[in-house]
Amino acid sequence: MEFTVTQLAELLKATIEGDASAVVHTVCKIEESVPGGLTFLANPKYTHFLYETRATAAIVNNNFNPEQPVTCTLIRVENAYLAFAKLLDFYNQMKRKNQKSGISPLACLSSTAKIGQNVYIGEFVSVGDNVVIGDNVRLDPHVCLGNDVMVGHDTILHSGVKIYAECVVGACCILHAGAVIGADGFGFAQQEDDFTKVPQIGNVVIEDHVEIGANTCIDRATMGSTRIGKNVKIDNLVQIAHNVEVGEGSAFASQVGIAGSAKVGKHCIFGGQVGVAGHITVGDRVMLGAQSGVSNSLAGGRVYLGSPAIPFMEEKKLIIYRKKLAQLYKQVAELEKKLNL
Amino acid sequence: MEFTVTQLAELLKATIEGDASAVVHTVCKIEESVPGGLTFLANPKYTHFLYETRATAAIVNNNFNPEQPVTCTLIRVENAYLAFAKLLDFYNQMKRKNQKSGISPLACLSSTAKIGQNVYIGEFVSVGDNVVIGDNVRLDPHVCLGNDVMVGHDTILHSGVKIYAECVVGACCILHAGAVIGADGFGFAQQEDDFTKVPQIGNVVIEDHVEIGANTCIDRATMGSTRIGKNVKIDNLVQIAHNVEVGEGSAFASQVGIAGSAKVGKHCIFGGQVGVAGHITVGDRVMLGAQSGVSNSLAGGRVYLGSPAIPFMEEKKLIIYRKKLAQLYKQVAELEKKLNL
Amino acid sequence: MEFTVTQLAELLKATIEGDASAVVHTVCKIEESVPGGLTFLANPKYTHFLYETRATAAIVNNNFNPEQPVTCTLIRVENAYLAFAKLLDFYNQMKRKNQKSGISPLACLSSTAKIGQNVYIGEFVSVGDNVVIGDNVRLDPHVCLGNDVMVGHDTILHSGVKIYAECVVGACCILHAGAVIGADGFGFAQQEDDFTKVPQIGNVVIEDHVEIGANTCIDRATMGSTRIGKNVKIDNLVQIAHNVEVGEGSAFASQVGIAGSAKVGKHCIFGGQVGVAGHITVGDRVMLGAQSGVSNSLAGGRVYLGSPAIPFMEEKKLIIYRKKLAQLYKQVAELEKKLNL
Repeated sequence: MEFTVTQLAELLKATIEGDASAVVHTVCKIEESVPGGLTFLANPKYTHFLYETRATAAIVNNNFNPEQPVTCTLIRVENAYLAFAKLLDFYNQMKRKNQKSGISPLACLSSTAKIGQNVYIGEFVSVGDNVVIGDNVRLDPHVCLGNDVMVGHDTILHSGVKIYAECVVGACCILHAGAVIGADGFGFAQQEDDFTKVPQIGNVVIEDHVEIGANTCIDRATMGSTRIGKNVKIDNLVQIAHNVEVGEGSAFASQVGIAGSAKVGKHCIFGGQVGVAGHITVGDRVMLGAQSGVSNSLAGGRVYLGSPAIPFMEEKKLIIYRKKLAQLYKQVAELEKKLNL
Repeated sequence: MEFTVTQLAELLKATIEGDASAVVHTVCKIEESVPGGLTFLANPKYTHFLYETRATAAIVNNNFNPEQPVTCTLIRVENAYLAFAKLLDFYNQMKRKNQKSGISPLACLSSTAKIGQNVYIGEFVSVGDNVVIGDNVRLDPHVCLGNDVMVGHDTILHSGVKIYAECVVGACCILHAGAVIGADGFGFAQQEDDFTKVPQIGNVVIEDHVEIGANTCIDRATMGSTRIGKNVKIDNLVQIAHNVEVGEGSAFASQVGIAGSAKVGKHCIFGGQVGVAGHITVGDRVMLGAQSGVSNSLAGGRVYLGSPAIPFMEEKKLIIYRKKLAQLYKQVAELEKKLNL
Repeated sequence: MEFTVTQLAELLKATIEGDASAVVHTVCKIEESVPGGLTFLANPKYTHFLYETRATAAIVNNNFNPEQPVTCTLIRVENAYLAFAKLLDFYNQMKRKNQKSGISPLACLSSTAKIGQNVYIGEFVSVGDNVVIGDNVRLDPHVCLGNDVMVGHDTILHSGVKIYAECVVGACCILHAGAVIGADGFGFAQQEDDFTKVPQIGNVVIEDHVEIGANTCIDRATMGSTRIGKNVKIDNLVQIAHNVEVGEGSAFASQVGIAGSAKVGKHCIFGGQVGVAGHITVGDRVMLGAQSGVSNSLAGGRVYLGSPAIPFMEEKKLIIYRKKLAQLYKQVAELEKKLNL
């Protein structure tokens, strides 16, 4: 596949700076660029690579202002990363033609399951009673759907995804390999030294356009639903406990853990390994730095850091103060000496 | 299903406060209550919901003392959460009738495996040589049992549980989807820049009444056994390394990690994301706050917090002192000025 | 199986101290030793067990200097742990004879897959189009290999390993149960409140002699490859994000997380639950204490600790200073009193 810069610019509604007739035939990272390659610059950290790139063309933001001469052709757009994502999607779709389709004779489907049109169900897939599967759904090998599960149209479940009975997955979702949806919440009534299991009779509801990472776990509710809002993006190895609610458009990096009954607002972004305690509320548009620990409810619209998490700039200052403690101890000793204490 | 409050009170040996003839037909959370619903109050944080509940009846502790008028009927018991757990279990058993049973023709069982009475083995289950499976065991689809594995009676292995050769799972256990029992411990002998794998020839022994969360990993011992005591409850995505021993009745929240050869006592409770170093001992009845890091042995019977973990109240004080550091620096600067330092 | 100490010493090129004709018939841990047992002493923490051991013989380092009388026969070698590892491997190989071989009729292999000699492929394994599998490879039940995957000779994939399309696994690797290789990297272009998925068209390349723990996830690159160097050892539940590069001979303990595009040098050792931020570089031979958090690039050849991670001894001092804060506050108050502030 070959494209001229002019063709790409038309597709992206972009302006061209440099040779508009240049031809690209592959995509590449800016730090590993090749002649004939199309690359992009979004993270300013990588700007210096652009000045020495061997790529033929680079997609950059409209407001990018080179401080050195650039030899490749620039394709200027509002949002370089977004434009590049669109091109990759286009590239991907062409490459991934001839997708498998149909239902493998080696799958095991309950006779009461309702299967939509144009579905792919791979070998060794298990589909329980009364399951409902929408159109264009893809179930890779070793997927297991318990009884009464619902999967919306155009959703992809990668190999080995396990969905317990009665859980609901929306449309246009992607669940990566090994994700477990609807295991029992961790609920026990304690009486002296004895634990009595609290049956978890609720379910999990995942709304549309959600992506869930590999080996991530989302537990079913004790009663009612654990709920993952529309357009939420969750990375690998994340734990979402029973009765948690995550507002639409929030994103969690890998190894985040949200404890039971916590409520996370809309459009929150959590860094890796963040922990949120149970029964608290995190407001809309909260950002949490990696490894933060949240033990109390947090007001929305702010950035927090640390464990326990406090406003980002305060934590940054405390980190600096902490590093200067040796000096502070010396200063105090000096003062005491001066005063003969 | 409908029950009068009188019927429920008899079942729970409870006393009634209010309309004993009231009828309930569902269970509900106190914050999402509905007419005809039975709810409960255990966490004091949720008390205010009780005063405005639409539920018909609520199970509360005997010592609950309302500070505002309550319109629903109160069912008073010693331990409200425990009583509710029992009712849920009852409800669950009625709802989950017609469980699957028998051995799927799509399972693959070694001819040398010994299978108990009244067992369910789902499709695509793999059972190795000389495996012994007790009565009433349930193996969901995609379970894999290596050679010489033993599974005690009434144990449930959810979809995709993998148990390596020679490991032992007790009776009345529940292992959630994707749990991996008996993978090789992380042991390498280092010689200059080279790693030599130390074969892990031990196994894992899980005693009775243990529950293990989704995608949790418990590694086999180098020699001897990694041992999980009776009645231990482990949440999702937890790591238990080789040769660890966990005493009976302990509970670990999600994403806890216990390093090799550590010994954890009886009736310990660890919050989420706690880490425990290898080759140390944690005493009985230790509680660890979320995200704590334990690098030295800890005496039993106490609550710890922080990384490195110290007694809870000390850590809480240090958190406050740390927050006041800006002020302390100012005070010292002031003192120095005063003394012309 | 029985061996004399003389036989073992010949095998290990060791010197004998004590009864060379003593006979051992099993291996045991030093703290759980039995008559007729062979044990070893590598960790000095366990030295006291040697003085009261019931084992018949113990492998120790050449430079081990007993401070009390020892009753068992000592087998002295350069590196006791390494020597014991070799014996365990020998023991293991004898015990694990009669390994399964051949291709199960219950596996599902694409007709375009190329399978090497002497391969074992278990039941319910799924092998996609154009997959290439080397000689002596072992694929346990429920393994899933996407299209165009390559697996090098003598590699073992335990039950339930999932490898997405186009990924490459080297020779002599071990991947434990539930590991997921090649899931999509966590990449989204944000535009106001909307996420657009950035297609991940790269792959994962795992070089030779790599071991990967249970339920660990290694994501495919956005473009190019996520790369795991030769002889890298990764424990359970670890997250390696897209476009990460890990240098040869590095080892990560459980629950480590490495964010996107980070570069980790050669021969690094990371403790459990360490987090490394995206787009940074960690030099060769860096050691990181458990739970450390790395937010900036680190120079090689040093030991770091803490979050944010700083040189180990500095962090150790700050931990002590922090613990003395109560006293410091008192000292300052005293000074202020003295000066009538």
